[in-house]
Amino acid sequence: MAEIKDLLNNVVLRPDGRAADELRPVRITRNFTDAPEGSVLIECGSTRVMCTATFTTGVPRWRKDSGLGWVTAEYAMLPRATAERTDRESVRGKIGGRTHEISRLIGRCLRGVVDMKALGENQIQLDCDVLQADGGTRTASITGAYVALVDALRWAERNRKIKRADKVLKDCVSAVSVGVINGTPMLDLPYIEDSQAMTDMNVAMTGSGQFIEIQGTAEHRPFSRDELNQLLDLAEKGNKELQAAQRAALAE
Amino acid sequence: MAEIKDLLNNVVLRPDGRAADELRPVRITRNFTDAPEGSVLIECGSTRVMCTATFTTGVPRWRKDSGLGWVTAEYAMLPRATAERTDRESVRGKIGGRTHEISRLIGRCLRGVVDMKALGENQIQLDCDVLQADGGTRTASITGAYVALVDALRWAERNRKIKRADKVLKDCVSAVSVGVINGTPMLDLPYIEDSQAMTDMNVAMTGSGQFIEIQGTAEHRPFSRDELNQLLDLAEKGNKELQAAQRAALAE
Amino acid sequence: MAEIKDLLNNVVLRPDGRAADELRPVRITRNFTDAPEGSVLIECGSTRVMCTATFTTGVPRWRKDSGLGWVTAEYAMLPRATAERTDRESVRGKIGGRTHEISRLIGRCLRGVVDMKALGENQIQLDCDVLQADGGTRTASITGAYVALVDALRWAERNRKIKRADKVLKDCVSAVSVGVINGTPMLDLPYIEDSQAMTDMNVAMTGSGQFIEIQGTAEHRPFSRDELNQLLDLAEKGNKELQAAQRAALAE
Amino acid sequence: MAEIKDLLNNVVLRPDGRAADELRPVRITRNFTDAPEGSVLIECGSTRVMCTATFTTGVPRWRKDSGLGWVTAEYAMLPRATAERTDRESVRGKIGGRTHEISRLIGRCLRGVVDMKALGENQIQLDCDVLQADGGTRTASITGAYVALVDALRWAERNRKIKRADKVLKDCVSAVSVGVINGTPMLDLPYIEDSQAMTDMNVAMTGSGQFIEIQGTAEHRPFSRDELNQLLDLAEKGNKELQAAQRAALAE
Amino acid sequence: MAEIKDLLNNVVLRPDGRAADELRPVRITRNFTDAPEGSVLIECGSTRVMCTATFTTGVPRWRKDSGLGWVTAEYAMLPRATAERTDRESVRGKIGGRTHEISRLIGRCLRGVVDMKALGENQIQLDCDVLQADGGTRTASITGAYVALVDALRWAERNRKIKRADKVLKDCVSAVSVGVINGTPMLDLPYIEDSQAMTDMNVAMTGSGQFIEIQGTAEHRPFSRDELNQLLDLAEKGNKELQAAQRAALAE
Amino acid sequence: MAEIKDLLNNVVLRPDGRAADELRPVRITRNFTDAPEGSVLIECGSTRVMCTATFTTGVPRWRKDSGLGWVTAEYAMLPRATAERTDRESVRGKIGGRTHEISRLIGRCLRGVVDMKALGENQIQLDCDVLQADGGTRTASITGAYVALVDALRWAERNRKIKRADKVLKDCVSAVSVGVINGTPMLDLPYIEDSQAMTDMNVAMTGSGQFIEIQGTAEHRPFSRDELNQLLDLAEKGNKELQAAQRAALAE
Repeated sequence: MAEIKDLLNNVVLRPDGRAADELRPVRITRNFTDAPEGSVLIECGSTRVMCTATFTTGVPRWRKDSGLGWVTAEYAMLPRATAERTDRESVRGKIGGRTHEISRLIGRCLRGVVDMKALGENQIQLDCDVLQADGGTRTASITGAYVALVDALRWAERNRKIKRADKVLKDCVSAVSVGVINGTPMLDLPYIEDSQAMTDMNVAMTGSGQFIEIQGTAEHRPFSRDELNQLLDLAEKGNKELQAAQRAALAE
Repeated sequence: MAEIKDLLNNVVLRPDGRAADELRPVRITRNFTDAPEGSVLIECGSTRVMCTATFTTGVPRWRKDSGLGWVTAEYAMLPRATAERTDRESVRGKIGGRTHEISRLIGRCLRGVVDMKALGENQIQLDCDVLQADGGTRTASITGAYVALVDALRWAERNRKIKRADKVLKDCVSAVSVGVINGTPMLDLPYIEDSQAMTDMNVAMTGSGQFIEIQGTAEHRPFSRDELNQLLDLAEKGNKELQAAQRAALAE
Repeated sequence: MAEIKDLLNNVVLRPDGRAADELRPVRITRNFTDAPEGSVLIECGSTRVMCTATFTTGVPRWRKDSGLGWVTAEYAMLPRATAERTDRESVRGKIGGRTHEISRLIGRCLRGVVDMKALGENQIQLDCDVLQADGGTRTASITGAYVALVDALRWAERNRKIKRADKVLKDCVSAVSVGVINGTPMLDLPYIEDSQAMTDMNVAMTGSGQFIEIQGTAEHRPFSRDELNQLLDLAEKGNKELQAAQRAALAE
Repeated sequence: MAEIKDLLNNVVLRPDGRAADELRPVRITRNFTDAPEGSVLIECGSTRVMCTATFTTGVPRWRKDSGLGWVTAEYAMLPRATAERTDRESVRGKIGGRTHEISRLIGRCLRGVVDMKALGENQIQLDCDVLQADGGTRTASITGAYVALVDALRWAERNRKIKRADKVLKDCVSAVSVGVINGTPMLDLPYIEDSQAMTDMNVAMTGSGQFIEIQGTAEHRPFSRDELNQLLDLAEKGNKELQAAQRAALAE
Repeated sequence: MAEIKDLLNNVVLRPDGRAADELRPVRITRNFTDAPEGSVLIECGSTRVMCTATFTTGVPRWRKDSGLGWVTAEYAMLPRATAERTDRESVRGKIGGRTHEISRLIGRCLRGVVDMKALGENQIQLDCDVLQADGGTRTASITGAYVALVDALRWAERNRKIKRADKVLKDCVSAVSVGVINGTPMLDLPYIEDSQAMTDMNVAMTGSGQFIEIQGTAEHRPFSRDELNQLLDLAEKGNKELQAAQRAALAE
Repeated sequence: MAEIKDLLNNVVLRPDGRAADELRPVRITRNFTDAPEGSVLIECGSTRVMCTATFTTGVPRWRKDSGLGWVTAEYAMLPRATAERTDRESVRGKIGGRTHEISRLIGRCLRGVVDMKALGENQIQLDCDVLQADGGTRTASITGAYVALVDALRWAERNRKIKRADKVLKDCVSAVSVGVINGTPMLDLPYIEDSQAMTDMNVAMTGSGQFIEIQGTAEHRPFSRDELNQLLDLAEKGNKELQAAQRAALAE
């Protein structure tokens, strides 16, 4: 791994001058707005996502009397998050496949670190709204939503809706994108790289270094087991750094 | 008018300590995001709206070959802009009446100061997304959208899409809410006052002091011609100050 | 005011020969159909709107156990109410912004004269369906819906659903359009004038001469405080006459 | 047949005192509204349907360059056409099965008497809106829509959109309901009878006595070939009388 | 009738060599899939429909506490059941008129042979999905759904949801299409004939030879009483044979 | 790997008696229906999916004049593919997130082996309709859709829509599910295992042993790098066998 890193650092020139295994600057702002139980602005390079967590007593009907809580997520892009304006899904009258897919991914990742029994019959809704999109919006959403989730659980503890926030969380979770560009595995792709990537993978990991979600797509060129392993190494490095940023933000 | 003002300043106690004829602090941040031709964050007290302006060459089909441009607007609230989470209209599969009503209002106000001939066959789409709602979101949207519109026109001038931005604008426009609370006319209502108002009026005015939109609603208690006049006086004062804030922001 | 009227009567020539401050002929037919608790056909010139009032015991869920009633309205146009056929909103699968806006306006106006406590936990739904449109359909809807509402309340009194219909009504309400055409303020605009109006205002007033709704739009040319005052004078005159027609119809 | 008729007239007592083979009073009002090319109010007893015909140059895309015209129909009920208010399909966001079924039936019946070649590449849209429903709304719609169709074709002839209206019409068409109630076949069922009918049939016939549509439903009790024949006899009698009413109206 | 048959057999040449009064080969496969209470594949020539019957305890809300059961049906086509691919109605976001019409027809036909009292407060949902369409899909659906319905009732008897399956069924039901092609009445039309038919009729009959549904359409050329009678004779013959196939399948 | 396999074969007892690394029986039936250019029924154990491929000349508008073809996919479940009936998405009026997610996955996998340049401006639409669901419906869809795609390309070659089918295909593709159940990695999970899996992964691979899609989800328990590697080994084995079944079917 060390050798690969050296090699990459020497050879590859990324548009923003980063090394192949380097994250974009991460900034996590808590209490970004006042109303939500958790409200976080996460910035990964130019990508900016507002993540809010809403804590509600009670669970959806299908989960009633189970003694278990529920965590769900919704993702959306503001119309001018992108270079070209995207029509609102509310105006089109239906949610597109990409939005559905990402919302479900975020929900699964966050549920992966929550002890539903400890949460009790309470629901947390995570809303990830992309203010500006420059690649990696789904992974930034997961990383930011985790911080909002923690804030919402702390709020719930303070307001005696749950006993102990720390018991609800089995671990932390973050996510990052990796991809192969011109044959070189790289970490944390901005839009310009993402659109050239032959292979593209989103990896969500826990603080203990295990996987919650791996989604690798190779529409443009299949990838080998070797490449997969290099990508997972990069993802592991990136997620460790993102989790450090989460911890720092939560310690403030 | 002067007497009324004195009286109000002495007697009424507003939750945030303002005088009856006093605006909440206004902050207008240009270039809030990078992608749009105009991108403004407007803050009126705790109300925060992100207003973007998208400039596109060409007009909708029904306006083709007219030699005239078009300006349109869409308004939306993020789910946790409010104390209680609001379901997304994209998820519900349809746009609610309130959203429709406000989007149309914003569009009319901005069209009211645009010379469609000078704009030529180009379209400007204004998107007003409420990040945080504390009353007056529709009037803040109008005031902020005007600044985003100016930026988009300047961009279009720089990029030779139009000849002169200043020729497209016939005047500036801002809007403010006024209302009667416990019998007292007041300027710029936050949510807590808005929900108690017997009468509620949104007034959009041009820099030359004329009206573009007046929408007065008295679902809870009809209002007299006298009260109307007092409300219009307050709105005039508020709009002058908002227009000063617009000018200051645009001069930066 | 008298001088203005004289002046207008002498100078302006309206397509239908009316004076500037003259209403179109109004005809209000009660019991237009048999099934509804209130059923009214209102004709203002060529504009014809069928207004029905449905009285139902009980209120929507969000208002249960409040002791208060509810009044709501829906407006729609038949496809060939207009010169060009309009597609049905049921076929398009969604309600347009204009329909939403007008439905909400009618609802607010009627609620403005109803004492919800006296109504008790009962609901009145007003349906205003435009059979023929020649300008002023929303104001005709309000004026006609009031008469249907009264009939529904009388029905409810006769059927012992409420104690006294007259206690439920705080006042009567009617509405009329006014506008500035070629610089001249005019009352009750048919379509041909409406489409030329620089400024356009809909004014709903109670029998005691107070305002319930003022909606002034100046998409094409802003209007001054002076013009506003002249328009309000005209609206006041028009609403008085419409309320006389309502009283006459209800006395039959 | 004569014997059956005598028998029925003597024995059966219908709620409105009619004989078993007697139509409800029919009234056809042409030019009910001004805008449409054909506008008819048809009243069959208490059932009232407004039928408009819209003539448009050109045909839908799938029929372009065929040299053939097109005729289509849409049926709808106003919310309080019925004793209980029905929610608007525009508000529900979709058209129900019954509405779809009836719209398609009306379209087929009218197309059945139109020579598409003689119509040329022009389209006629028939809108049947039920103002009051007391059984037989679909058959009244067909009978009324035919008159509106004739008026639209005459308009098109006068305005030189088509050469000769009479060449476009291959025949006239009307429709009527018949049903078996307590074992007795009856003509033209009002709602109270319709809801008791074991068997229910709608029969559309041309002036020459041939069938365009037969729709017999026996959800509650199957019917024999004999009963079918009696019902068809009644339908034949009813349609002849309806066609006389159509001719009388068109002769005015 | 015998003469007509002879004549037809001698003269008419059908694309598949059948006599005018001859059914296409029918094949009914029970237990086509494992999960449903009744699961049938019916093949009529190249037309193939999968019919499943779902038995559920309880009835829709509007029928609760009536002591009566309910039977309903949904029909759909797979996208490539036809020569040209049809867009999915789920993707279009709404159900088309044809689908609605057929679903309702199937439901009425099956309800026509069910004793709702004997069924008790239980619901049977019939799903008819067309795998391959070659004319007569709606009649094949009815014929196949009946077999699936019987299987679901037998399942319910075995599982003690109802007392006796045979008491729930008042009779059997099947359906077949008939039509006039180039002046000749014919039985069981495949797509190629159906598209040429001047007149087209679907006839659902019980085992006792009575009618449950007759739907005759003559968009292209009206039909006489004589033709109607010939078509009904053919339908009677066809339905008898289809009911024999049903009995044979159910006896296996 | 060999040791693991031995271990698994000895210790684990799967409900259907399979070894941990054993596929369910696979059956691929080509020409399942007549109309589509490619029509395949794939059966993996009790899971049965009908996969059709529709070849159309021309591409969607956004891809016109690119010289490139397009491949897209739609997945759906029949209502009674499952033990409990699922409501139709067409009836609900919208497509659910799961359906969207799977449709997109299938599309990406198939595009991953198609040379869009060699396909030219032609489109292939893959429809995967689940007749019976017992786990692994999305992976069976991919495996079956590949065979349907090949048949459609061969059809296109025979009909001279493309030059050579074999040049369009860069490789073959199949997919299989793997998962960890009670700590044991297993291949090809039926529903009963899938619902107990702590970790669940779908792996699409090419004939050359490279990855096109990896989707691993660990909502219930995160998985380690070691477990990932074992799962990928199993997936590789399974995909090789599935590709042999594809080849065998295509050779018939």
